[in-house]
Amino acid sequence: MSEPAGRADRLAARVAEREIDRLLVTNLVNVAWLTGFTGTNGACLVEPGRHLFLTDFRYAERAAEIEGWEVEIVTGEWLKGVAAALAGRVGVEDGHVTLRDYGRLRELAGDEVEVVPAGGDVEDLRRVKDPAEIEAVAAAAELTDSIYLELIERGLTGRTEEEVARYAVARMREMGAEPSFPPIVASGPNGASPHAEPGPREIGLGELVTIDMGSRLDGYCSDCTRTFATGPEGGLDDRAGGIYEVTLAANLAGLEATRAGALGSEVDAVARKLIADAGHGDRFGHGLGHGVGLEIHEAPRLGPRSEDELRTGEIVTVEPGIYLPGETGVRIEDMVVVGAEGVARNFSTVPKALTFVA
Amino acid sequence: MSEPAGRADRLAARVAEREIDRLLVTNLVNVAWLTGFTGTNGACLVEPGRHLFLTDFRYAERAAEIEGWEVEIVTGEWLKGVAAALAGRVGVEDGHVTLRDYGRLRELAGDEVEVVPAGGDVEDLRRVKDPAEIEAVAAAAELTDSIYLELIERGLTGRTEEEVARYAVARMREMGAEPSFPPIVASGPNGASPHAEPGPREIGLGELVTIDMGSRLDGYCSDCTRTFATGPEGGLDDRAGGIYEVTLAANLAGLEATRAGALGSEVDAVARKLIADAGHGDRFGHGLGHGVGLEIHEAPRLGPRSEDELRTGEIVTVEPGIYLPGETGVRIEDMVVVGAEGVARNFSTVPKALTFVA
Repeated sequence: MSEPAGRADRLAARVAEREIDRLLVTNLVNVAWLTGFTGTNGACLVEPGRHLFLTDFRYAERAAEIEGWEVEIVTGEWLKGVAAALAGRVGVEDGHVTLRDYGRLRELAGDEVEVVPAGGDVEDLRRVKDPAEIEAVAAAAELTDSIYLELIERGLTGRTEEEVARYAVARMREMGAEPSFPPIVASGPNGASPHAEPGPREIGLGELVTIDMGSRLDGYCSDCTRTFATGPEGGLDDRAGGIYEVTLAANLAGLEATRAGALGSEVDAVARKLIADAGHGDRFGHGLGHGVGLEIHEAPRLGPRSEDELRTGEIVTVEPGIYLPGETGVRIEDMVVVGAEGVARNFSTVPKALTFVA
Repeated sequence: MSEPAGRADRLAARVAEREIDRLLVTNLVNVAWLTGFTGTNGACLVEPGRHLFLTDFRYAERAAEIEGWEVEIVTGEWLKGVAAALAGRVGVEDGHVTLRDYGRLRELAGDEVEVVPAGGDVEDLRRVKDPAEIEAVAAAAELTDSIYLELIERGLTGRTEEEVARYAVARMREMGAEPSFPPIVASGPNGASPHAEPGPREIGLGELVTIDMGSRLDGYCSDCTRTFATGPEGGLDDRAGGIYEVTLAANLAGLEATRAGALGSEVDAVARKLIADAGHGDRFGHGLGHGVGLEIHEAPRLGPRSEDELRTGEIVTVEPGIYLPGETGVRIEDMVVVGAEGVARNFSTVPKALTFVA
């Protein structure tokens, strides 16, 4: 976990700009980002000049190690303890708190306390990564890339999708990581499903195989997709080879358009146009990319409807795909740091020129 | 995943008894229980005579395999597609839906549709397990018990807590399961923390070691705790041996009190009294037990404030503990099926008489 120093102060500055006295942070990913705490129960109450961390007796020792936070150990009913700490006009994370907990918090806090929806600020602050976070993601990406190279070295033909996925997960764990999501290994016609689950299908010769995987290391995620061809070079039919080249061009164009100030919809449009121009506009049924950090999918979004304006220091994926039902599919995904003039760093080092794997 | 036939009809019967026309189920565990669907996005709309399952394009093929459900594939914004399916007075799972999604659903559904909090029915139905579910939990428990026996066979002294936990997880995975939660291995003074994380501490001679672990197999969880003594028989100090015997008596008394019709608070009280009578009433800082199924912690609860009345066919844990800060701790946990006259089946076969392990 990266060093969270200064983050609560930045959040408190946001609180000061809103019409609330303090913000109650209950999303545990946001709590972890603010404090470094990774237990299963905790909340932060943040206002200018005061940072209060609440947890229960199980985490009393770990809570005492959190620097820069006043700690309160709640005994008895959790929400009752949280409500007792509230005063004035309190914002809650409406994108996280359940309808039931919201009602209960209001009831327990009493008439003197106003509880209002005010989520999104922590997610927004989390978009821009600090140098330690970027190195954490880089380490997860490097680990994943080394597994891609092993897969190429071992070959794919004759193995089942499940077997390839299991190998990748086992290698992640041997290296001290966990999968950041269950790996996708989609061969031949299965490649037409963007989120195929690895199955018992044996990978054949002359096929495309899409592998989408990432690791979680020290809390931070990575994400990368490559599509390989099996068998000797030249053994792939022209239609499959054709969509590969279009997807690669879309990936490169998307990366070229990725820079601070661009809208998520604009970057998406650049890549999507190339796919549409090639006649596959209706075969790219998902957004171009997403932020990556403590979560595998976080803000910002790159997609047709995204109004997110990219900022320097964000980590995003660029992952166009073409999916031909009943036939085959391609997706090529890089994970990059957004810079002022373009991509500041590309974490995905596995070659993107169509690679033939045994 | 167990066969979900008939579950939607039972839920529809509950809907008919409430002042709602239909229930929107968005908690994915509940969706999985109702349909067998295990993807990352889906919802059920249930009313007498109609069972509608909604998901997005990624799961179109898997959705088509779900028997007995009308399927709708949402394109575009998810909540917009869900809202379009709503009509009349619709209940939502207020313990799961976020405050933001609730507001957005109401907005999108329009003035003709009434969206009201109505959660809890699926969780309540899930309490009583059908025979296939009981066998699924039994298989997960059997797998876990075999690992306990391996740990006893290999010995604990001289190993670190982390090493023991890693071994257990690796064995689960080799047998096709996953841990249902990160195992607890708490030795010596660490045993005083009910939720200790396994650390680099080397397990010594003449100590108590609490191991709390479970597997998830085919969707269903198991949960078991045993506390062992290290070194040759008789090498444990009297105080540690004493709290072991009290905890064991509390476990047995709790099991004796577990039967359909008993309240969670009543079963808890029976076990808690033995611990209090031995002078450790303030050293048992958690509830006596909880339901186990698709989730490692689910309804019902056994605890001082629980008003849950136990029912035949529920699977619950009975896990009293005594925790002496700075010294040591004991917890003994069985997982059982509630029967009309008492425990119908105890899944936890690892011996409970104090076992000395090398």
